[in-house]
Amino acid sequence: MNAPAAQPALQPLPAPARIGMPLAEVDTPALLLDLDAFERNLERLYDSLQGRPLRVRPHAKSHKCPQIALRQIARGAVGVCCQKVSEAEAMVRGGVADVLIANEVVGAPKLARIAALARHARIGVCVDDAGNVEDLQRAAQAAGTVLDVYVEVNVGADRCGVDPGEPAAALARAISRAGALRFAGIHAYHGGAQHLRTPAERSSAIAQAVEKVARTRSLIEADGIPVAVVTGAGTGTYTLEAASGVYNEIQPGSYVFMDADYGRNLDDDGRPVHHFEHSLFILATVMSRVLPARAVVDVGLKAHSVDSGMPTVVGVPGARYARASDEHGAIELDGPGSMRLGEKVRLIPGHCDPTVNLHDWLVCYRDDRVEDIWPISARGAFY
Amino acid sequence: MNAPAAQPALQPLPAPARIGMPLAEVDTPALLLDLDAFERNLERLYDSLQGRPLRVRPHAKSHKCPQIALRQIARGAVGVCCQKVSEAEAMVRGGVADVLIANEVVGAPKLARIAALARHARIGVCVDDAGNVEDLQRAAQAAGTVLDVYVEVNVGADRCGVDPGEPAAALARAISRAGALRFAGIHAYHGGAQHLRTPAERSSAIAQAVEKVARTRSLIEADGIPVAVVTGAGTGTYTLEAASGVYNEIQPGSYVFMDADYGRNLDDDGRPVHHFEHSLFILATVMSRVLPARAVVDVGLKAHSVDSGMPTVVGVPGARYARASDEHGAIELDGPGSMRLGEKVRLIPGHCDPTVNLHDWLVCYRDDRVEDIWPISARGAFY
Repeated sequence: MNAPAAQPALQPLPAPARIGMPLAEVDTPALLLDLDAFERNLERLYDSLQGRPLRVRPHAKSHKCPQIALRQIARGAVGVCCQKVSEAEAMVRGGVADVLIANEVVGAPKLARIAALARHARIGVCVDDAGNVEDLQRAAQAAGTVLDVYVEVNVGADRCGVDPGEPAAALARAISRAGALRFAGIHAYHGGAQHLRTPAERSSAIAQAVEKVARTRSLIEADGIPVAVVTGAGTGTYTLEAASGVYNEIQPGSYVFMDADYGRNLDDDGRPVHHFEHSLFILATVMSRVLPARAVVDVGLKAHSVDSGMPTVVGVPGARYARASDEHGAIELDGPGSMRLGEKVRLIPGHCDPTVNLHDWLVCYRDDRVEDIWPISARGAFY
Repeated sequence: MNAPAAQPALQPLPAPARIGMPLAEVDTPALLLDLDAFERNLERLYDSLQGRPLRVRPHAKSHKCPQIALRQIARGAVGVCCQKVSEAEAMVRGGVADVLIANEVVGAPKLARIAALARHARIGVCVDDAGNVEDLQRAAQAAGTVLDVYVEVNVGADRCGVDPGEPAAALARAISRAGALRFAGIHAYHGGAQHLRTPAERSSAIAQAVEKVARTRSLIEADGIPVAVVTGAGTGTYTLEAASGVYNEIQPGSYVFMDADYGRNLDDDGRPVHHFEHSLFILATVMSRVLPARAVVDVGLKAHSVDSGMPTVVGVPGARYARASDEHGAIELDGPGSMRLGEKVRLIPGHCDPTVNLHDWLVCYRDDRVEDIWPISARGAFY
């Protein structure tokens, strides 16, 4: 479906590195993954759950990389979340057997694709509209497959999702009556709470979400419909949902990487959150060095996303990435001494998810040597 | 060089459309090009030059698409500009015979690539550092090629470029002494002036740039070194450089597309600039429609860039794209009547260049039917 008519194949760009190469020789801009930090982040998620028997379903929209998804599953995840059909297709092609599209999907072509994808993997999807439930039922029936369907409840972000209570219960009833759909539970993600800076703000937002979900769950169960899964939560709040007694599945994504914006969230002790380490960097080269207190690097808007603020410069005291143009970054310096022409420097991206989506390759390193190169297979998969 | 070691090939995403398909059936998100408006923009650039014998070298960083470059050249352009080596490689592979990398290039691997590329096309590059001139000379000599080299002069943007006057003249002398380099002229682009909102502000900024360039040109020519080309200018200011009598080549890029940010520039008559039409759109689908005055579309940060502001919604009175998250756009509405679930809507991106860079395909339409599908071959080409 929607295959291009006789178009030339796109030529994928070569990776900016080779396995075994010293980090200093990697071409720039490059997206780097510090494997030691990444692996510690994978573990620390479980440490922070303190043995609670929760299902972990990390969000693959952050990494878009099956190699990472398979490592998350090896560590105990039940599968992954995706946001888009083509992203889910990339994950299934990459070997993931259980994908929840944590989002609404509309339109006959996309519904036919998820129904077909369910021949190869367990596929879940969210709904917030009764007509969409009928469309999903038709698509799954035509494909001869069964889809897991979650009612999405608006718990405060005012984005997608029906109101808690009766509107959600009505959708659950409609799903449970549809023969090719399996009512799988409640999807309740509070996107707006992830970057509230203080623990008190995040705690208050999630307490309200938990109350809405608990009330909705009771109402659905009063109809005799079991609510198997209550799923949601991101890197900023998941410990709260995990402790709620109501959520039994969490969906953190950014925890594997972290970013400058998450680095501004504060922990109970008033320090920046320190569960997780920065494992994701952009390697940049100084490509112009004329003004005494300014270095220009080769990393601009096309190699990182500034929607949540500028990146942080690693290891150069006083350096501040001040301004991004399409292909340039202007770094303000304390003085003329540092960041010589040709020097390479690591940046911590402002926002990991849309930054990863700009790159084709993740250059994985350990001890300053390239250990692996992973394709970001779902880069650009926004259909 | 830098080829990946035994990596699986990336599977390019299928295009969201087929040739001949009605526009209404195109899958979303999709990047659309209105061919009639695009073709009028190609013409209007020349109309606005009023017969001046200027060289036009459009900037391909905006479109990253050889199909567009070849049409610009067919209309009279001498070649294109690029910002990156891999972008230039994509243009040469796509059939462009004359490329100016309007940017500094540092590091031996990249210099070897541009020197090798000069076997296949005329290649220019900018410099603002004497050591870089030596490195370029070495690379071209090793490849047995000759490179056109431009001295980049800082005319007000304070990004790359040496100071006008003697620092620029010294570099010109160094280039003219280097056997494998051809001193081609002065590169003087005032990025900071392109989005000054009033004609008076733009005029003042470019007058200062012109003075700096004229002074520098005289100084270089006083050394007996001819300055063949003075190149620069963007969509926001090119009529000023064209009328200056000093610039003899212009580099507009965005004029083929326009965007919401350029749409905020004012003309002499106080109206938004009206040389050019919006030809570039993102097609979006309403994928959630629960709150009365809010529609959620499937186009978020991964399908358009918000660095210069939010996109504009076409054809829905009172609709305002208020907030972008990774995969969602929240559109505020006057009331509950418009933008039904599943409806498709066109958005004018806030900033065309980094938005185009997020897409693999340009869906070209005329009279509401898909006429062609062009690969954005240099998407992600930031090396």
